[in-house]
Amino acid sequence: MTESVGLGRVLEPTGVLPQAAWRLDADPAIGPDEVRIRVRRLNLDAASYRQLAGKHEGDGAAIRAEVLEIVETRGKMHNPVTGSGGMLIGVVDEVGPDSPLPVKPGDLVATLVSLTLTPLRITDRLAGWDGLSEQVPADGTAILFGRSIIGVLPDDLPPELALAVYDVCGAPALVDRVVRGYPAGATVAVLGGAGKSGSLSLAAAKRAGARTVAVVVSDSERDALRGAGLADAIAVADARDPVAVAEAIGTPADVTVVCVDVPGCEHGAILATAAGGTVIFFSMATSFSAAALGAEGLAADVTMLVGNGFVPGHAEFAVGLLRSVPAVRALFEARIAGD
Amino acid sequence: MTESVGLGRVLEPTGVLPQAAWRLDADPAIGPDEVRIRVRRLNLDAASYRQLAGKHEGDGAAIRAEVLEIVETRGKMHNPVTGSGGMLIGVVDEVGPDSPLPVKPGDLVATLVSLTLTPLRITDRLAGWDGLSEQVPADGTAILFGRSIIGVLPDDLPPELALAVYDVCGAPALVDRVVRGYPAGATVAVLGGAGKSGSLSLAAAKRAGARTVAVVVSDSERDALRGAGLADAIAVADARDPVAVAEAIGTPADVTVVCVDVPGCEHGAILATAAGGTVIFFSMATSFSAAALGAEGLAADVTMLVGNGFVPGHAEFAVGLLRSVPAVRALFEARIAGD
Repeated sequence: MTESVGLGRVLEPTGVLPQAAWRLDADPAIGPDEVRIRVRRLNLDAASYRQLAGKHEGDGAAIRAEVLEIVETRGKMHNPVTGSGGMLIGVVDEVGPDSPLPVKPGDLVATLVSLTLTPLRITDRLAGWDGLSEQVPADGTAILFGRSIIGVLPDDLPPELALAVYDVCGAPALVDRVVRGYPAGATVAVLGGAGKSGSLSLAAAKRAGARTVAVVVSDSERDALRGAGLADAIAVADARDPVAVAEAIGTPADVTVVCVDVPGCEHGAILATAAGGTVIFFSMATSFSAAALGAEGLAADVTMLVGNGFVPGHAEFAVGLLRSVPAVRALFEARIAGD
Repeated sequence: MTESVGLGRVLEPTGVLPQAAWRLDADPAIGPDEVRIRVRRLNLDAASYRQLAGKHEGDGAAIRAEVLEIVETRGKMHNPVTGSGGMLIGVVDEVGPDSPLPVKPGDLVATLVSLTLTPLRITDRLAGWDGLSEQVPADGTAILFGRSIIGVLPDDLPPELALAVYDVCGAPALVDRVVRGYPAGATVAVLGGAGKSGSLSLAAAKRAGARTVAVVVSDSERDALRGAGLADAIAVADARDPVAVAEAIGTPADVTVVCVDVPGCEHGAILATAAGGTVIFFSMATSFSAAALGAEGLAADVTMLVGNGFVPGHAEFAVGLLRSVPAVRALFEARIAGD
């Protein structure tokens, strides 16, 4: 167990998991259950890049120097200020004999675990990067442990589209699982239904036989979603206003999915959910205590799930939705073009 | 709907529910569906008391002064650092004509919703409290809304014992519900098994037919729990050390219950849980992002529940366990005596 989660890669402090570690051993020589990837590109987490760009006032050379310094110091691209990392794309280089990961040398892959726990060595000084974007062309090596997640990039999708889907692929898979636990025709409400995780969640709920209600923040989001056919009803409301959310959704939902990345959406989601229903929190801005105490304070008999980013088969499931529901793909492409 | 959840008591910011509010109106004059309680005793949430005691290095007068300041500033006992509150005992003073709560003036009751959403006014400067325990003798008034939960105190139990049980009564009820979703003989691991919510969770799991494993922090807790017969196995480990927790539990558990009120227990709980298993987080010190990113980083297919403090019938269920399992009652009485 201890090796499969990468404990042998932790240099300091000892005893913690790689994500919690200050420094990892990024030695390219792999253990029996590890996989080495030849890195092509890093996708820095948006919060991390924003912090670096702000600190260096947009000076690309200084941003690049700090990324290099972080990776050299920590053995991983783990921004010490934001605590976040990102993902990477690369080609599988070597697969240890005991690795359970379903890849072979030569596969073009994306890592589906955070860079904050991925041993990384950069060998090209990031010479091909101007420091001015989250997308970082890079050469070097990264290590995946036995207990990890990797996605082979599909041949039929541009890599940036596949990455955008992989980034949120836990959401539709968990929505599918939860909705199938309710009778057909259950109502699923998605707060933030026009976003990436939101639109995939709507598509998953619809495919699972649910009636879908989307709550979006603006008229323009409503219009963007209206033509997509993913939501049987769309309401415009501020997800942080619990009464507005409950009124927008109307009859309480069996399943409410929170995909809005701002604090304060817990109570609206709880208030909008029927007794015996489930709230799935996918936003990293969720407050544990606000959810727990809010449900108690409302005497709300609802099951509340921490949105786990991993469900077996989640990447394939999400890419399948993108391929089969053109409206989802169109929403994603518009988002990517707008970035 | 808007009045029954106490929106009229929210002073700032407007539009949020009382739990999310910075400040409530604690005016003792009640609305038509409200209930006023004459307060006798507050029971501070363990995480909140621990934070206050740590900050003031055990100086009782300073702890008392800060509790008074919080209540005066916010109109509720809502610790701004931990986000948690507690509960209270009192006597029903006045019941509004439209209140749906099943109480009458003179009833000795406990509020089963958090103090973080209960309008509270203290009138005795907490003169009867030395600041050195979570149990706070107090005089003043508290308000309950229409949509709320209240428990009449049983005649056969001392009030402080009933309050201590009510404080954590959501835990055994939810453990019971979750464990019954697994085959008989499932393994349930409880981190912090010697505490209040922990021992009730063990008792509930055992009654539901589970094999129980307790993880406790010290030899003295192990010895206290050993004679109780609640745990089939007991291990001593630091719940913040993921590898130690996983090794202490051994074969991964079907259900892991986190009842340790310190930060950093998420990864151990996830690592100790089998694929397809469930982690129930009852600790208010739980970090949502540590849980979500931790499970993803470990490729852990586990269901993670925010421990909802409300399950229908939870108070009666917990009191029933206390009455029928003498070992649980003994653990509670020892804890109360030690406070």
